[in-house]
Amino acid sequence: MTTDESVTPLHQTLLNAASAARYASRQLGTMPAEARVKALEAIAAKLEGAVPEILEANAKDLARAEENGLDAPMIDRLRLDEERIAGIVQGVRDVAALPDPVGDVLASWERPNGLQISRVRVPLGVIGVIYESRPNVTVDASALTLKSGNAVILRPGSDSFNTSGKLVALVREALAEADMPRDAVYMVPETDRAAVGHMLSGLDGNVDVIVPRGGRSLVERVSKEARVPVIGHLEGICHVYVDASADIEMAKAVVVNAKMRRTGICGAAEKVLIDRAAADRFVPEIAKALIEAGCEVRGDDASLSRADGLIPATNEDWVTEYLAPRIAMKVVDGVDGALEHISTYSSGHTESIIAEDEKVAEKFLTEIDSAIVMHNASTQFADGGEFGMGAEIGISTGRIHARGPVGCEQLTTFKYQVRGSGQTRA
Amino acid sequence: MTTDESVTPLHQTLLNAASAARYASRQLGTMPAEARVKALEAIAAKLEGAVPEILEANAKDLARAEENGLDAPMIDRLRLDEERIAGIVQGVRDVAALPDPVGDVLASWERPNGLQISRVRVPLGVIGVIYESRPNVTVDASALTLKSGNAVILRPGSDSFNTSGKLVALVREALAEADMPRDAVYMVPETDRAAVGHMLSGLDGNVDVIVPRGGRSLVERVSKEARVPVIGHLEGICHVYVDASADIEMAKAVVVNAKMRRTGICGAAEKVLIDRAAADRFVPEIAKALIEAGCEVRGDDASLSRADGLIPATNEDWVTEYLAPRIAMKVVDGVDGALEHISTYSSGHTESIIAEDEKVAEKFLTEIDSAIVMHNASTQFADGGEFGMGAEIGISTGRIHARGPVGCEQLTTFKYQVRGSGQTRA
Repeated sequence: MTTDESVTPLHQTLLNAASAARYASRQLGTMPAEARVKALEAIAAKLEGAVPEILEANAKDLARAEENGLDAPMIDRLRLDEERIAGIVQGVRDVAALPDPVGDVLASWERPNGLQISRVRVPLGVIGVIYESRPNVTVDASALTLKSGNAVILRPGSDSFNTSGKLVALVREALAEADMPRDAVYMVPETDRAAVGHMLSGLDGNVDVIVPRGGRSLVERVSKEARVPVIGHLEGICHVYVDASADIEMAKAVVVNAKMRRTGICGAAEKVLIDRAAADRFVPEIAKALIEAGCEVRGDDASLSRADGLIPATNEDWVTEYLAPRIAMKVVDGVDGALEHISTYSSGHTESIIAEDEKVAEKFLTEIDSAIVMHNASTQFADGGEFGMGAEIGISTGRIHARGPVGCEQLTTFKYQVRGSGQTRA
Repeated sequence: MTTDESVTPLHQTLLNAASAARYASRQLGTMPAEARVKALEAIAAKLEGAVPEILEANAKDLARAEENGLDAPMIDRLRLDEERIAGIVQGVRDVAALPDPVGDVLASWERPNGLQISRVRVPLGVIGVIYESRPNVTVDASALTLKSGNAVILRPGSDSFNTSGKLVALVREALAEADMPRDAVYMVPETDRAAVGHMLSGLDGNVDVIVPRGGRSLVERVSKEARVPVIGHLEGICHVYVDASADIEMAKAVVVNAKMRRTGICGAAEKVLIDRAAADRFVPEIAKALIEAGCEVRGDDASLSRADGLIPATNEDWVTEYLAPRIAMKVVDGVDGALEHISTYSSGHTESIIAEDEKVAEKFLTEIDSAIVMHNASTQFADGGEFGMGAEIGISTGRIHARGPVGCEQLTTFKYQVRGSGQTRA
């Protein structure tokens, strides 16, 4: 453990917590699956029995948020009520019921010399999660990391510190009561942003991976400062490409859903690309459907000349994640034009093609190099639950380790077990 | 592309090369498998037909290495001869013959709403490899990355620049002649170490992952400067634990092989832990076997008091990778003592237990959290070829993405393909 004089009290506190989390992760990772299920059930029961306390802590955060003039969507994400707490509790039970990933034999084979080799799934270890002021994430992240045999160090957005702190205190109590190591779930004790820097430094090798969730400034800070691996979460600049072979009714329904079902999620479509070969027909119809659904449409010249009610797009529009009822529309030269545009501007999250021509669709599915590529489906399905993977800690736009929804399985790694009978190498 | 005035000519050259490598990687990753096989065969034939040129380039490196007073093992690793070139060529053909990993469907399932989801293996993209002055790695890394559909940017040790440069020129010629993108294999043009920094910066997002091979100073530089993911290669502080239940003849054979077969590889055992319950018998026998094989043995007090010919170990010995005919020996309290010592001092590479007691062995295999854990086998088997995975670019000691041997499969990632019929999300 570092005991350098230059270490601040906060840094030392975090070093100690990470060392305890490492120890807890070793215990958790080698326990039987039932012990982790029991712990999650204890957590669900504990939260269920503490609704008034949780609401009291939440009221403090809400009061301060209003004083500080937070905007309405942020206050909404921060707010808990009985129904939302019940949803959080149900989420813990859902995670408990997922198949246990730890110890899965991913592959096994025998070598000619008789060595038996198995690749076995094991927990990642200690996971640092840096996220927004969303109290539900505090519990979701704790449940997912525990289920997969990991310890977690949480750093929620400062506006949710009272609520998240209360939730973590309850989780730790439940762990202790279930004879599980309470140090497996830890929340940084201060809103001081220096804590983020300490987590990114790896805390003496006791943080194995960082999961950052948040806006561009967090992502940039993480990419600059992280000394440990990161499961990346960039923004979602998601595209829908409407091929000339598309069924126009399906195209309208999917584009409107992909954009407007919920505009604030990372899987919401931000750009719609229209095949030039059908632009005269598709641009006005799709633009009209979007505008009628309450969406602002910013078009390139080829779109503006074909539909009414559009606003001219600028270069900035192709690289902007709106998270709002706004979309940018561009006319492209068939699937190759779509591939070209997407490979230049996509953030690698999710893209969808609407087409009846299977050959064109397969080309898109093969050549687009994003975490999720879809054919004739709404980008709003980019979600761990919708994929049938259970809860998720986020959607990774990075290329290594985990891509797409990050659930229990993605919070594991593997090791090789080699069983011999005294083999030596020639 | 960055065209900032502060960009040096070397940096601009590398930015251009990385952008070209990105483009080449997109072509490679969507080509049929046979095209990559054909390219590898063309490379093998090209190298085979250029032996005199390669030896000439190598002679220049060797002459300079002798002038610069490089030590004998380093000169040996640098030296090529006809036989070694034939081995390199055979390596390319072996990689060509491996199963193609790209496009493998890793899993697929259908959702209740009819969405068909598949997880499909795809190349990582552009891989930066920073390595020692070993010309064979230049070709191995090129072959493995091409086979798995990736482009590669190579930065060999400066002592091998003539040889590696000639090899890369031949590889690129062969690619062009096979109608494949030559920019898929690129070597940095100068020995200037600034090139390493530029690679670690990610070259405008066109390097997806760095594979560093080399000593502590490289690893430390990478961990400090990398702005892109790293497939980590720390040192191999590998342990063999001899349980009281071990067959002593097997233990002696495995320990001597694990240490002495080749002392300079990362899978060589560096520490031997002896169960206190059998120390009176095992310490003298194992120490004698090692010393007779030409190994220096550094012992803790409990070992020193039980055997002749040992040198006292210091604390430094438990954290040092010797890569030499030297081992440190310690008496521990059974498997729990071994777990405790290894979890404190191991670099997470490879550990082995010698035991007849299956229960003890399983405890070791489960609880040791290294990339490779073995029972009754020599740590020298920690190798992609010995695992049946074909060639490897190294052994990862990191926890994310790849652990253990890094072969073709480990140089890939995956994406999700979702096939629908117009589904929208409720």
